[in-house]
Amino acid sequence: MEAVANNIDSISKLISDREFEKLGEIFMHMGAREVVYIIDHLTKEERLELLSQLPSEVAAEIMEEIPMVQASEIISDITAEDAAAIITEMQSDDKADLILDLDDIDAEAIFEVLGDQEEKSLRKLISYEPDTAGGLMITEFISVDSKLTARQAKDYLRTNSDLFHNYSIRHLYIINKNKNLVGVVQLIDLILAKPDDQVGNIALPAKSYHYNTPLEKLLGFFEKYDFIGVPVIDDEERLIGVAMRRDILEADAERVAMEHLETQGIVGGDEIRSMPTLLRAKRRLSWLSVNVLLNILAASIIAFYQDTLSSVIALAVFLPIISDMSGCSGNQAVAVSMRELSIGTVRPSEVLRVWIQEVRVGLINGLVLGLLIALAGWLWKSNIYFGLVAGGALMINTVIAVSIGGTVPLLLKKYDIDPALASGPILTTITDMCGFFLALSFAAAMMSHLSGI
Amino acid sequence: MEAVANNIDSISKLISDREFEKLGEIFMHMGAREVVYIIDHLTKEERLELLSQLPSEVAAEIMEEIPMVQASEIISDITAEDAAAIITEMQSDDKADLILDLDDIDAEAIFEVLGDQEEKSLRKLISYEPDTAGGLMITEFISVDSKLTARQAKDYLRTNSDLFHNYSIRHLYIINKNKNLVGVVQLIDLILAKPDDQVGNIALPAKSYHYNTPLEKLLGFFEKYDFIGVPVIDDEERLIGVAMRRDILEADAERVAMEHLETQGIVGGDEIRSMPTLLRAKRRLSWLSVNVLLNILAASIIAFYQDTLSSVIALAVFLPIISDMSGCSGNQAVAVSMRELSIGTVRPSEVLRVWIQEVRVGLINGLVLGLLIALAGWLWKSNIYFGLVAGGALMINTVIAVSIGGTVPLLLKKYDIDPALASGPILTTITDMCGFFLALSFAAAMMSHLSGI
Repeated sequence: MEAVANNIDSISKLISDREFEKLGEIFMHMGAREVVYIIDHLTKEERLELLSQLPSEVAAEIMEEIPMVQASEIISDITAEDAAAIITEMQSDDKADLILDLDDIDAEAIFEVLGDQEEKSLRKLISYEPDTAGGLMITEFISVDSKLTARQAKDYLRTNSDLFHNYSIRHLYIINKNKNLVGVVQLIDLILAKPDDQVGNIALPAKSYHYNTPLEKLLGFFEKYDFIGVPVIDDEERLIGVAMRRDILEADAERVAMEHLETQGIVGGDEIRSMPTLLRAKRRLSWLSVNVLLNILAASIIAFYQDTLSSVIALAVFLPIISDMSGCSGNQAVAVSMRELSIGTVRPSEVLRVWIQEVRVGLINGLVLGLLIALAGWLWKSNIYFGLVAGGALMINTVIAVSIGGTVPLLLKKYDIDPALASGPILTTITDMCGFFLALSFAAAMMSHLSGI
Repeated sequence: MEAVANNIDSISKLISDREFEKLGEIFMHMGAREVVYIIDHLTKEERLELLSQLPSEVAAEIMEEIPMVQASEIISDITAEDAAAIITEMQSDDKADLILDLDDIDAEAIFEVLGDQEEKSLRKLISYEPDTAGGLMITEFISVDSKLTARQAKDYLRTNSDLFHNYSIRHLYIINKNKNLVGVVQLIDLILAKPDDQVGNIALPAKSYHYNTPLEKLLGFFEKYDFIGVPVIDDEERLIGVAMRRDILEADAERVAMEHLETQGIVGGDEIRSMPTLLRAKRRLSWLSVNVLLNILAASIIAFYQDTLSSVIALAVFLPIISDMSGCSGNQAVAVSMRELSIGTVRPSEVLRVWIQEVRVGLINGLVLGLLIALAGWLWKSNIYFGLVAGGALMINTVIAVSIGGTVPLLLKKYDIDPALASGPILTTITDMCGFFLALSFAAAMMSHLSGI
């Protein structure tokens, strides 16, 4: 840790000494995690100074490594000229994501200073939906006409090797005169081909996807086939880009991570603690304020049974336990449903199947937990009825909780509502209400056996 | 959905008709998500019948696609001979993972029937730690001696193309006579090289990692460099494998997904609902039973203040709200810490920095939530002191909750305890205890102002 603290100090020093050439060298060879750490730990002023003064290809690389929320903050805070210079150097998919993350005003300012050609292709790129083949593809690929011979294709690569030095060339995409995809030539096959073979003849038939194809489908493709990328075509079946495995896997990892954050009440993307306190507080509150209202709603059940509760005040100890434990059981079911939806062992329509499978587990776990709580209540107050009230409520409520937790994510998904965001609050509100109602109404019904505890 | 239901029925039919050749064809060309879905939805008997009768290369591919927990269940239920045949066809990293997931007895039975050579290399593979370069690498790579010319290297590829047809060849790894890695030749450079160039001379210097390198470090490497794989070396710096980008990204996505499941109380890996009910119940209970004890511990605070509570029974409505809302605030802080640890903007040693940043947000959010609850209490009971007791307790407890939620994951990580597993229970137990104590002791102190509500 020492070494890194020193590193940040020395980077700060280099920035204030305006040693940007040296800084460029340092950042070029720094590991990605270290870049992330250092950019985060610089002051805002240092960060802006550094990114606007570094050679734009180094700045572009840093932008691709740090969290999106920080990258877009930097881009909106530096001049449109500096921003445009950096964005031009970024890979096509990354720059589209970044532009999409900006305010419209900032984005337009950048478009103003971009060259016509660059502006046009960027506007095209951001017209594709995020998390589709079009939104995830890169446009840096090499296509050659199917009539070329292997020798001509190799010559073409040799002649243009300067142009392609930034591409990671692993395939040649073979097109006909209408730019329709004919197939793919792997470099190994180009090596093994006879010089006079036409590339169209050594090409392997290639699967391609329309630009509207969702992430999930691309993911399935790459799980099945050991390819590095898959061609993306437009409405006229012309080759327009390549969706790379790495970008698909990264987009999916990002989706899972964002889903997890949402489940835990961090909404609207990453929160990095170096962001302004007020912004962080506001974003967290947007979630908490909904929850506090739902909590008040749920707890109002207790208010209705105030008389019952004052006769059996010991039950007040068990109400939070019933609420918490039902929440735990329900959350387990939510997590399993989200995971099964994600890996594909369940589909949104299978509500009944999931419900049955959850009830089975809920009955067992409800019985065990209910008995435990009943025992605790009985031992504490030496009144078996008191134990039965608390334990019985928890037992039944566990079954309710897993039923809701298991099925709600499927139902939300079916109606295209974000299950990560909505499942938790729906679950806790309903299970709290049911739990409080069960415990208190059982107590009211058994009141004659509960007096004097 | 219709189409898929039909599909499962027709697959079942083909299995009972023993049409395994046809089934092999079907599964070879089925998308990965569909494979996952269908295997999950077959009965256990059908699954075993199918996997033991399919051509082993098709079965191996299915094994690589379905969840690990299902794959290892299948492998332990079919004969060791069938299992060995399938495992032999799997990629080196996948087969090692699978063997590691088996009981020792099942694993030894499979080793028995494997060939000597295959057994030796598999035992070597499973000796590497999971989530290290050795545990993640594949051993299917091509290395050639640095003294070979480009022409000889091409001839070597041509002569051995049969041998390599299962490899995804993207590089040649160049070694010296001691098998030390000299560098890497990209296929594009082999194409562009003059026939008499020695491959040692056209090789690019290559970064390599010792087999003990952790996943995190490899991930940083691939975030930085657009390579497909990185060579892995042993203690004598001999080339022993290649850690592929795809496998590193997948291992990380898996880590994130498992972390999320653990946070939500699903421990010990994936739960697939087609697993036996008793097993699912037992695994969920292992987590719930710890939580119920912690819950009883926390709620016992209420029991101590039973007299106070019976004088101000209305406070019983607010205790679950304070408990739930503190949990929400604390969980947000846990999620941000886990995410920052994962992307690298925070390090486990920065407890103080995180604590300060959490307290800032906690003060704002505690104030807002506390005022809201105070207002609700005041309006309900027309007693401002009652509102102050409930709101004040929630306000202070919010600061406590984010302090614990933000710092506990760092501390656990620092002492090498799994933060995903332990953060939640630690958080809720402490915040519940503090919340109940604050509300009830405030009420006790203000009792003279609270009578008669």
